[in-house]
Amino acid sequence: MPILERKDTGAIARLTLNHPEKLNALSDAMLAALSDEFEALAADEKIRVVIIAGAGKAFCAGHDLKEMTQGRQAEDGGKAYFADLFARCTKVMTAIRNLPQPVIAQPHGIATAAGCQLVASCDMAVAAEGTRFGVNGVNIGLFCSTPMVALSRNIPRKQAFEMLTTGEFIDTDRAQALGLINRAVPHDDLEAATDELAETVAAKLGAAVRIGKRAFYDQLEMTLDQAYAHTGQVMVENMLYRDTEEGIAAFLEKRPPEWDQ
Amino acid sequence: MPILERKDTGAIARLTLNHPEKLNALSDAMLAALSDEFEALAADEKIRVVIIAGAGKAFCAGHDLKEMTQGRQAEDGGKAYFADLFARCTKVMTAIRNLPQPVIAQPHGIATAAGCQLVASCDMAVAAEGTRFGVNGVNIGLFCSTPMVALSRNIPRKQAFEMLTTGEFIDTDRAQALGLINRAVPHDDLEAATDELAETVAAKLGAAVRIGKRAFYDQLEMTLDQAYAHTGQVMVENMLYRDTEEGIAAFLEKRPPEWDQ
Amino acid sequence: MPILERKDTGAIARLTLNHPEKLNALSDAMLAALSDEFEALAADEKIRVVIIAGAGKAFCAGHDLKEMTQGRQAEDGGKAYFADLFARCTKVMTAIRNLPQPVIAQPHGIATAAGCQLVASCDMAVAAEGTRFGVNGVNIGLFCSTPMVALSRNIPRKQAFEMLTTGEFIDTDRAQALGLINRAVPHDDLEAATDELAETVAAKLGAAVRIGKRAFYDQLEMTLDQAYAHTGQVMVENMLYRDTEEGIAAFLEKRPPEWDQ
Repeated sequence: MPILERKDTGAIARLTLNHPEKLNALSDAMLAALSDEFEALAADEKIRVVIIAGAGKAFCAGHDLKEMTQGRQAEDGGKAYFADLFARCTKVMTAIRNLPQPVIAQPHGIATAAGCQLVASCDMAVAAEGTRFGVNGVNIGLFCSTPMVALSRNIPRKQAFEMLTTGEFIDTDRAQALGLINRAVPHDDLEAATDELAETVAAKLGAAVRIGKRAFYDQLEMTLDQAYAHTGQVMVENMLYRDTEEGIAAFLEKRPPEWDQ
Repeated sequence: MPILERKDTGAIARLTLNHPEKLNALSDAMLAALSDEFEALAADEKIRVVIIAGAGKAFCAGHDLKEMTQGRQAEDGGKAYFADLFARCTKVMTAIRNLPQPVIAQPHGIATAAGCQLVASCDMAVAAEGTRFGVNGVNIGLFCSTPMVALSRNIPRKQAFEMLTTGEFIDTDRAQALGLINRAVPHDDLEAATDELAETVAAKLGAAVRIGKRAFYDQLEMTLDQAYAHTGQVMVENMLYRDTEEGIAAFLEKRPPEWDQ
Repeated sequence: MPILERKDTGAIARLTLNHPEKLNALSDAMLAALSDEFEALAADEKIRVVIIAGAGKAFCAGHDLKEMTQGRQAEDGGKAYFADLFARCTKVMTAIRNLPQPVIAQPHGIATAAGCQLVASCDMAVAAEGTRFGVNGVNIGLFCSTPMVALSRNIPRKQAFEMLTTGEFIDTDRAQALGLINRAVPHDDLEAATDELAETVAAKLGAAVRIGKRAFYDQLEMTLDQAYAHTGQVMVENMLYRDTEEGIAAFLEKRPPEWDQ
């Protein structure tokens, strides 16, 4: 069995973290598999939405602490290994933002430390009711400094600070209220609910979603004036797509669009 | 009937988008009327608060798609027209931030695409219960890239991303919980509730509100240290207003202030 | 009685604003006392968490308006005094962010203007139910421009704008929903609840919390890519702490860590 499964259904690629005996830890092997798959997906024009799920009883419990501990045996006490590890992890997390397709996290059980970061890094998230989210590295003396980059861009700062310094978990009601997930559904409905959201997005004009996703994150880091200057250009480009012309014509004629996409 | 009505009551100017047969679309004519009115308001020292409402069954349904489609007949397929159109729309949206007076949106029915952007761009919003908000351009192949600039500065990012890529509407409960509106009231109370908020703000010292509004948006785009350096100067300037001296004196003497304003 | 009391219990320092007849106003004396105490705390390696509470019926009612009014008698009408006052106040507020220890606000009664800013500036806040929060300087003609720097980095912008321009108070339910406080508890449980949160954080590895707090605020003002580059280095440094090595080893061996800290 591969450590990362990919199953495509139409325009939707479902990735499943598949190392349940390690609670789908982001080991060297898992990070490499994710990185490779994201690279493949970035070039895969038939895929319009990506889902990330986890096999077994947990979505993802963060880094592989055993593997990290082994890294300490190098002459430098692990310094170079850790620097490389966090760089590889960051590459995976930012690859989600950089992918042309929207990415939906589908957490269940627990999503902790870098596992919680993975949820926060996805564009959207649908969780199983009862999932617990935490950035609890502080409990073992390792502050979740990289996970907080994603977390603090999802939820208000006092609430992020509390999670980071207490190591306490939040439930799905709280995660939804704070903005970490889009919604929670009963565990039995989880895959169907995520698929439904993915299918909704996959039915849109792919080129419009792609240009929009990129612009979404770009403009978030700009001033208001810069953001409008940039997205104004994006709107012009989008308007000139043949399929967009057809989409608008179909709307005005009250008929479904006939898209080449 | 003008496409944009303005009615002043004391220090409050109420603008009403008045093209109900087009769901108050932001046509070339509507954008020009808004732009002219904002320019007039910026220089109107007797107006302290501006309200933006819509006539008919909807607040605003965004751009005028028929007019945009006609723009395609130019030799460049509409490219120059679209660039100019989005620039004019951005000018209207940013004029709201740049106006010295607070601006309150009063949406009802639907507020979609650039209509939702208009709500997000106002300083505050009071909605009729049952209003539906959406950035649904994606449904016709035109991602709401400019509307998202305003939207993503009002609500958390996963929730904004979902609205943008699914095209689905949110109701007033959700809009309030996310931060897109300040409150919702029964439709029959809408105008009165907006007026009440406007009157509350209009009763404050106008000069203080003006200097505060400008500083509010300026400091949001600064680092914490820059923001404090800037607003510290604003506080000094505000303290030296004669009316502020009187306001503080009146408070200490437990009497109402006698302001020249 | 000192204007600012400090009582240490183990690794927790509890500061109590102690000028109840002035509603613990941030007078020149109070600002000086806070500034001195923060300087002492920054160098106090045995303290791991700081609590800020208020004696009497209110947490803090903001600046001392009588003292500010006296400042007007200078030849320049108070200009130099006000500039210095706001600079000293800003130094106190930013000292909270710069302190190596997490700081918890413990508001009760009212927290208004710079008193509300004090709550917003702390890393976390536990309030007594019934506490009212406001940035109500606008009511006396003095817009809360410096308080809004902290407030607008805690809660969504339309809600911040409303508080600033109406001067109206919000209650603890609203403050919690918006992100201004972490939670509210009955008044009789207030000190115990704050202590409990402080003890939870104080029980973590101090070095990890310190490096994490600093990185938290640093990365908030960076782009995503900068934030990851920075926090990746922080994670490596944290991993190389001897106590972190022990924390991870203890976790893997399912025993409590033996920390030197």
